[in-house]
Amino acid sequence: MTDAINILELDHTFTMHRGGVLHAVEIAYETWGTLNEDRDNAVLLFTGLSPSAHAASSPADPSAGWWEDMIGCGRPIDTDDFFVVCINSLGSCFGSTGPASLNPATGKPYRLTFPTLTIEDIAQAGAEVVKSLGINRLRAVIGPSMGGMTALAYCMQSPSPPVDAFVSVSSAARALPFAIALRSLQREIIRNDPKWQQGNYEAGDGPLQGMRLARKLGMISYRSASEWKSRFGRERAASVPSAHDPFGVEFEVESYLAATANKFTGGFDANCYLYLSRAMDLFDCAEHGGSLPCAATEMPVQKALIIGAETDILFPLEQQEQLAELLREAGKEVVFHPLPSIQGHDSFLVDMDRFRPAIGEFFRGL
Amino acid sequence: MTDAINILELDHTFTMHRGGVLHAVEIAYETWGTLNEDRDNAVLLFTGLSPSAHAASSPADPSAGWWEDMIGCGRPIDTDDFFVVCINSLGSCFGSTGPASLNPATGKPYRLTFPTLTIEDIAQAGAEVVKSLGINRLRAVIGPSMGGMTALAYCMQSPSPPVDAFVSVSSAARALPFAIALRSLQREIIRNDPKWQQGNYEAGDGPLQGMRLARKLGMISYRSASEWKSRFGRERAASVPSAHDPFGVEFEVESYLAATANKFTGGFDANCYLYLSRAMDLFDCAEHGGSLPCAATEMPVQKALIIGAETDILFPLEQQEQLAELLREAGKEVVFHPLPSIQGHDSFLVDMDRFRPAIGEFFRGL
Repeated sequence: MTDAINILELDHTFTMHRGGVLHAVEIAYETWGTLNEDRDNAVLLFTGLSPSAHAASSPADPSAGWWEDMIGCGRPIDTDDFFVVCINSLGSCFGSTGPASLNPATGKPYRLTFPTLTIEDIAQAGAEVVKSLGINRLRAVIGPSMGGMTALAYCMQSPSPPVDAFVSVSSAARALPFAIALRSLQREIIRNDPKWQQGNYEAGDGPLQGMRLARKLGMISYRSASEWKSRFGRERAASVPSAHDPFGVEFEVESYLAATANKFTGGFDANCYLYLSRAMDLFDCAEHGGSLPCAATEMPVQKALIIGAETDILFPLEQQEQLAELLREAGKEVVFHPLPSIQGHDSFLVDMDRFRPAIGEFFRGL
Repeated sequence: MTDAINILELDHTFTMHRGGVLHAVEIAYETWGTLNEDRDNAVLLFTGLSPSAHAASSPADPSAGWWEDMIGCGRPIDTDDFFVVCINSLGSCFGSTGPASLNPATGKPYRLTFPTLTIEDIAQAGAEVVKSLGINRLRAVIGPSMGGMTALAYCMQSPSPPVDAFVSVSSAARALPFAIALRSLQREIIRNDPKWQQGNYEAGDGPLQGMRLARKLGMISYRSASEWKSRFGRERAASVPSAHDPFGVEFEVESYLAATANKFTGGFDANCYLYLSRAMDLFDCAEHGGSLPCAATEMPVQKALIIGAETDILFPLEQQEQLAELLREAGKEVVFHPLPSIQGHDSFLVDMDRFRPAIGEFFRGL
């Protein structure tokens, strides 16, 4: 862990949304910019499933963050104006308590004894950080992908301090069956790896091959057919299948997937992945208020930005438009920004030329 | 095998498109209707990856076939007019020679010693059947999915007997990287099952779990998000995850996938699946003629029907439209029929109310 990471250690028990209690919870976060005197210029950022709290570089950690282009001095979320806080999700493995953490009661990792994790719990952990920092007002709660769900859950369950704006980036108000099916299959692939051992693998000796295959399936759902068509076409890879391995890598797209999967799998704990993945399936904003329209009405924000990519198959634009419409009907001031990005769900990490100005404009108006 | 299945035993060697030779090749096929006196009313049907030659019921096998609604007396491909021949693909495992067959030279199954299989080989095996039946003219060569690729390859490489019409159902002129990535991952999942044993499993003791997971991935790519949204929504399954299996089936869509996968996996040989799946990736009609436009020009048919579903993500409609356009530019009489079916790639097996009349109209005009 770098010097940029702050750890909030809770001195009280943490009650989970679907039951169960955690003790000695730790929540990792990073910050950029300065909280002003009135403590009212904060922006709370939740992440997608896999990133850490390192969203951008800082003096304490000059390495590039996962949303480097979006946060900083003169950038769309301008740290000259805003004090930005990014949370490592509860249940993840980059400093926050999760299934890979030691259970203080047993001295062993929680593994599958970790209680059911929900998006609401991740939001609640973020609320603990906001409280601990003495923030009086949040100018925005924002998140991409799973982070957008978390931002939504945050707004629904933490009315204080007040939140001015909700920003959903390539996200949705609930999980639908196509995305559930994809994530369910990823989890099954991991659990099917003999090295998973019902969750009881030792740290560093987990189901690497299962994680690799699950990540490949993830990449297939994160990008788009049209991007890959223009990027890879039917290009052949440098190495081709041999008599020894007739089903090995032949096409460039296969070699790209292999490289991407290898890069990912070393760093992420398999049980944490399973818990976070399932939390997304379980999320349905309609549970707050009885229906989606009621939830939208009860949401204590005035402004919202709903932004996403036309080629997203995991969080289809139709769902995002529906969320924008619901919030508009509930009387919010809503900007809906559908972008013609070709990189699918991942566009918010790649097509910065489109996402930067749209998000920058919204934040300048806050 | 039922009485409906005919087996053509080749009395000559079969040279594979990418090298290698097979001896004592057998090709399974079924027929419906009667070949007329002029032997010029035949329709040749190729299948998708997994079906047998049993496309429809017959007196010899009254069980429903995989395209039961499409073939028969008074049906769109009317057996009062046409003599229909359906081929079990070379490389498959329902009567035709494939990786699961005994190699006459060794007395053992080919397994991975089977030469590289291509769509062109499957088409060539169909041509052997056509020749053996003394057919003078084919009124149409038709196939859905992989079968459409095979029909295309057939037309390109078998100019005699003459073919009047080419019918592509939810198919394409080449494999693109999104579909390649999905199939490549399916193959890797199967090969990753320890029971695959580098292809050397015993019949009936193969990589069942890998096949099950690959089939689930298949189903995700065969259907559409909008169908599943309206069909399953966020319905919960009858059984829910327990403390014992916290990642078990929770949603109805998961239980549907499990049931579909279980139904499939008993009957299909894993090595055959790997060979056929890779044959689809390798297919590129541009290899016949140097480019797609050249291939279209050289294609010895006068009429074509290109029909598919708007929600198909495996063979996107855009690709189908492009094929129609190329054939039209090459001077063919082309009907392009995009259908608003919501069942994705599988629509041709499910949305019969749309596919039946469109295909029937075309065949009545032949």
